[in-house]
Amino acid sequence: MAEELIFYTNPQSRGRIVRWMLEEVGVPYETKVLEYGTTMKSPEYLSINPMGKVPAIVHGGRVVTECAAICAYLADVLPEAGLLPQTLDEKANYYRWLFFAAGPLESVLNNRAVFKEEPEVEKQRMLGYGNFRDTLNALSVAVKANPYIAGDRFTAADVYVGSHIGWGLQFGTMESREEFIRYFDRLRERPAFTRAMSLDDVQAKEISEG
Amino acid sequence: MAEELIFYTNPQSRGRIVRWMLEEVGVPYETKVLEYGTTMKSPEYLSINPMGKVPAIVHGGRVVTECAAICAYLADVLPEAGLLPQTLDEKANYYRWLFFAAGPLESVLNNRAVFKEEPEVEKQRMLGYGNFRDTLNALSVAVKANPYIAGDRFTAADVYVGSHIGWGLQFGTMESREEFIRYFDRLRERPAFTRAMSLDDVQAKEISEG
Repeated sequence: MAEELIFYTNPQSRGRIVRWMLEEVGVPYETKVLEYGTTMKSPEYLSINPMGKVPAIVHGGRVVTECAAICAYLADVLPEAGLLPQTLDEKANYYRWLFFAAGPLESVLNNRAVFKEEPEVEKQRMLGYGNFRDTLNALSVAVKANPYIAGDRFTAADVYVGSHIGWGLQFGTMESREEFIRYFDRLRERPAFTRAMSLDDVQAKEISEG
Repeated sequence: MAEELIFYTNPQSRGRIVRWMLEEVGVPYETKVLEYGTTMKSPEYLSINPMGKVPAIVHGGRVVTECAAICAYLADVLPEAGLLPQTLDEKANYYRWLFFAAGPLESVLNNRAVFKEEPEVEKQRMLGYGNFRDTLNALSVAVKANPYIAGDRFTAADVYVGSHIGWGLQFGTMESREEFIRYFDRLRERPAFTRAMSLDDVQAKEISEG
């Protein structure tokens, strides 16, 4: 029997990454929408994620937080969805770019938004990413090498890396390089992506209309 | 036949995490020490890691960069080392805390070192970690729950999360909470950890003596 799967999210959050992943996996799940500052900081939710942020999933009583972790976990424990890397080549790329996006890429984009200025060169060594240009250049290498991040097949790493690239293009936080556009065009056509976006758009509308 | 494994590092870098992982895995590997600013930025190495930073591994011709990715990759492709999570409970914790350490924890520690001040509360939502206190509190939850990060058994996630905690305690970048000390005391006794530290200390000494 399938284990209960609860998805805590807000349609205006990185929870959209997990929504997409859940739609790719194709198992039933229950969505609980939390609000910033209120239900997200309730004692009940803090016992699930002490960081007080979404998304999180509870799968058969097991908590997983962090978007990339949720993608990797679901791919691993529901292998019939076919979102895991198979060959050694795929595994090398899968882990490399999942953690690259969760670490350097996420950091450099957040820090540009929050701190505005890049740190001086001698401090860049302390940061996992160095600087914006090097980080985007590395990402270009990744998306140019193969049709998908891990190789010829779509995997959970594409959900995570692809979401970052999709947002970067949409909100202008990333340069609109041709390789990013081509890569994301390949992903946005997936039925699970379309379903996920539409489910979140409906919930965002419900919230804004009170 | 075993595939060739090359380890690019510098003993004064996060490469120490990967050295520990390699010693845990117990397969033969060749170490190539690179210097900041020179060999780390050479065209030859940039073709391996366009970020121009260490560590990286090349395993049978496959490149993996990012410390946490290297730990997860080696645990996955060399399962006889027994460093992978097995049960669903272990998998949930394994991915959750690996990505937590590679994302929020690494970011908050780096940003404190580089930018000095924490961003204002309304900007914290943009960052994956919120603030220092919440991040350390979440880490406390993780290390108090079980003897090891994923559960009762040591896994690759302990190499990565444990390295962060070990450094945090050593350099004072993390509060010396009792749960961190107890957790790290459990790890530092491992023969692979001792071997790894000593190999890197020898190389650091060779470099400083020219």
